[in-house]
Amino acid sequence: MKNLNRRRFLQRSGLATTAAFFSGFTNPKKTLAANPKQYLGGFSVAPIPNIRMAFIGVGYRGHGHAEQWAQIAGTEVVAICDLYDDLVNKTKTVCQKHGKGNRHKNIKTYSGNETAWKKMLTEVQADAVVISTNWKNHAPMAIGTMEAGAHAFVEVPLALTIEEMWDLVRTAESTQKHCMMLENVNYGREELLFLNLCRQQKLGELLHGEAAYIHELRWQMEEVERGTGSWRTDHYAARNGNLYPTHGLGPIAQYMNIGRTDDLFHRIVSFSSPAKGRRLHAQKNYPEEHRWNQLEFKGGDLNSSLIKTKLGRTILVQWDETSPRPYTRHNLIQGSLGTLAGFPTRLAFEGGMSGLSDSHHQWIQGDALEKVYEQYEHPLYKRLGALAEKMGGHGGMDFMMRYRVVECLQKGEPLDQNIYEGCFWSAVAPLSEQSVAQDGQVQSFPDFTRGQWKNTAPLAIVS
Amino acid sequence: MKNLNRRRFLQRSGLATTAAFFSGFTNPKKTLAANPKQYLGGFSVAPIPNIRMAFIGVGYRGHGHAEQWAQIAGTEVVAICDLYDDLVNKTKTVCQKHGKGNRHKNIKTYSGNETAWKKMLTEVQADAVVISTNWKNHAPMAIGTMEAGAHAFVEVPLALTIEEMWDLVRTAESTQKHCMMLENVNYGREELLFLNLCRQQKLGELLHGEAAYIHELRWQMEEVERGTGSWRTDHYAARNGNLYPTHGLGPIAQYMNIGRTDDLFHRIVSFSSPAKGRRLHAQKNYPEEHRWNQLEFKGGDLNSSLIKTKLGRTILVQWDETSPRPYTRHNLIQGSLGTLAGFPTRLAFEGGMSGLSDSHHQWIQGDALEKVYEQYEHPLYKRLGALAEKMGGHGGMDFMMRYRVVECLQKGEPLDQNIYEGCFWSAVAPLSEQSVAQDGQVQSFPDFTRGQWKNTAPLAIVS
Repeated sequence: MKNLNRRRFLQRSGLATTAAFFSGFTNPKKTLAANPKQYLGGFSVAPIPNIRMAFIGVGYRGHGHAEQWAQIAGTEVVAICDLYDDLVNKTKTVCQKHGKGNRHKNIKTYSGNETAWKKMLTEVQADAVVISTNWKNHAPMAIGTMEAGAHAFVEVPLALTIEEMWDLVRTAESTQKHCMMLENVNYGREELLFLNLCRQQKLGELLHGEAAYIHELRWQMEEVERGTGSWRTDHYAARNGNLYPTHGLGPIAQYMNIGRTDDLFHRIVSFSSPAKGRRLHAQKNYPEEHRWNQLEFKGGDLNSSLIKTKLGRTILVQWDETSPRPYTRHNLIQGSLGTLAGFPTRLAFEGGMSGLSDSHHQWIQGDALEKVYEQYEHPLYKRLGALAEKMGGHGGMDFMMRYRVVECLQKGEPLDQNIYEGCFWSAVAPLSEQSVAQDGQVQSFPDFTRGQWKNTAPLAIVS
Repeated sequence: MKNLNRRRFLQRSGLATTAAFFSGFTNPKKTLAANPKQYLGGFSVAPIPNIRMAFIGVGYRGHGHAEQWAQIAGTEVVAICDLYDDLVNKTKTVCQKHGKGNRHKNIKTYSGNETAWKKMLTEVQADAVVISTNWKNHAPMAIGTMEAGAHAFVEVPLALTIEEMWDLVRTAESTQKHCMMLENVNYGREELLFLNLCRQQKLGELLHGEAAYIHELRWQMEEVERGTGSWRTDHYAARNGNLYPTHGLGPIAQYMNIGRTDDLFHRIVSFSSPAKGRRLHAQKNYPEEHRWNQLEFKGGDLNSSLIKTKLGRTILVQWDETSPRPYTRHNLIQGSLGTLAGFPTRLAFEGGMSGLSDSHHQWIQGDALEKVYEQYEHPLYKRLGALAEKMGGHGGMDFMMRYRVVECLQKGEPLDQNIYEGCFWSAVAPLSEQSVAQDGQVQSFPDFTRGQWKNTAPLAIVS
């Protein structure tokens, strides 16, 4: 049975979620070797001058995607889907407004039930489908998108289980479609600066990174009936691990060329703190009989995981959306000749940096950063930064990402993040859950590229 | 064979360093249960009004110990020992100067060979012996000290192997002597403030801590013939793990009451980064035939370890004395109601702190800290801080520690750190080495208290 047919068989027979029974789906060693002709490491498709875009999920995040993509030249919004009528209509209206009577004039809308997206994919021939739904739908919708002949652009995390990730890889390879996880943080100004400094060898050999998503989001629990909190809260209750690793980890992985010539994730260990904050928050803010007070919150408030790479580098990955502390993604990258870190941005170089620091015992930070940006600003930010700041979206990083997607598709060039990167970064969640469940036992990463990472070029400094 | 005789037999027969052959010495489960009458958790001895002090090792650190202890009322320096004549004489001179003709008039000196300290312990009846030698001598010298009838005060780490730690525990219990590791950082102003805030429940339930000793000390390699670099460099070359954990970890452990009623270290996982910096430094600064260029540096530049406690709390412990980056000990403690962190000092509390921050999304830092210190300064610092700052020693923490040792011995009160704490904190080094050697396999901590931690009172807020 060929992969595609096999997977369809699984879907039809309702076994898609029990794919783990098929050992080839779970054990990377038993996975068929990558077909170099199908491998998507530096994948590109023929130029798409006018990109027909569809959107599944237009709540807070998806609405923002549609609204801004509708403003970027070269797009045509052709369909919008959501469970809820009002969201679909609101997003349609805003897209049409930005179309100014020239674009986005025929937007089909789908809503009302959990399978509306399938109908949309059948009826609308989109080039690109943007998926911003609850996590459990990411993989099935991306697979459906690619099978329908469109490229998939998926919110983080790309998928929830290792099995889903293998299924995505196989579908993308067999359909020869893009499947990009939309990791916007890789387009942050600081992250682009750090990438540029790494590529210019200013840190020497890279040794260690630190990534985090520490962002107190208990307020999302106000969304009880619909919206992010209505489903994410259930994840926090039922699962114990590092559930949301990619915002911090994506940039670190690209500094280190993970899955691209130099290095690969190898092993991971993980511990979670006790689970206290969500229960306390529920008790304090909701009546005893409320849904939030019926949940047993099993997920530790803060998860700390350590990754070891093939080259022996280490990466700390932390996650906490519960505890009362200020936001950070850490964004620390350390090499033999210096260390860069975020929150706040600070840099140290062996022997200091002329005019900015006397030695590596001092951080370069605050006003002094202006001079660093003058000299080392990433070319992409030089080109698009002013526009990105005007357009907005997490300080402009959202715009830069969306703009690059359009640009790459229009030019027929590889995207800045390939499907394997989405899988590697997202894999931290299920692997950390396994390590936590086994009281810290070390887990191995699958190689989603099946050895092809050695032939995959590092992300270039795009100008 | 009773423990003491058995250990002496091992020493005489030259088997002390191969004690691992005796399974009872290595496997905590096979270790005899603690004798509650011998247990040293809240141990104190009869008041010692005038403390006869001897010093083994008076290089950089040991000289500082002797010079300042000689100035504290209630001490009498009776002997000084070092391999080197000049160091002994220099320290004797400075102690006598501080004695002003009233104290420290009859200081015996010992030097010239590796066994001079044994002669000193036989000839001089000291009350307290301060050991500031190379790491491998810490445990044998502390054991010799206690057998000679004196209390041992040992620089960090307390010992190098789990076997040595058990041997120290057994000797201290059978001789009923203090064996305190001199963790000065627990007496830092910030650390005392944080301890006070934890004890006042300002963080709610403690969930997570972060400790580090990130201190670029490659310059120590200038000490080729004698001095710290002459022997520490060999450790960095031969061993791969978290070799120097206690400065960062000691305070975190006391915030969490590790080994004292509430909690205990349970498991540890550890990864080291590649080893690059020392070799690069040697190549750059020393001729090809130099000793440093003959070494193979196996120890990764940065080690990151994660501890899980019995209560499920997590602690990150990092170590790096090689990489070009600014100093930090992290000193982060996170609870269900707030987070405190160091380097720089910053605090966040659920809902903010009146007049200082509007919410926990903001750090209280910089000038605003003055008001926090006004309200929450540790009573010990209030009493001794001004004097400590005048006397100096790592910003006064050294003085505070030395003063407290004298005060406790004079009053016949328990010391602020017991032998088990010294063992738990030091155990991170050998356990992390094992985890690194096993590519991240989780390791279990021995319980040096053999269950008695449950009956050991937390360190009080000493006023």
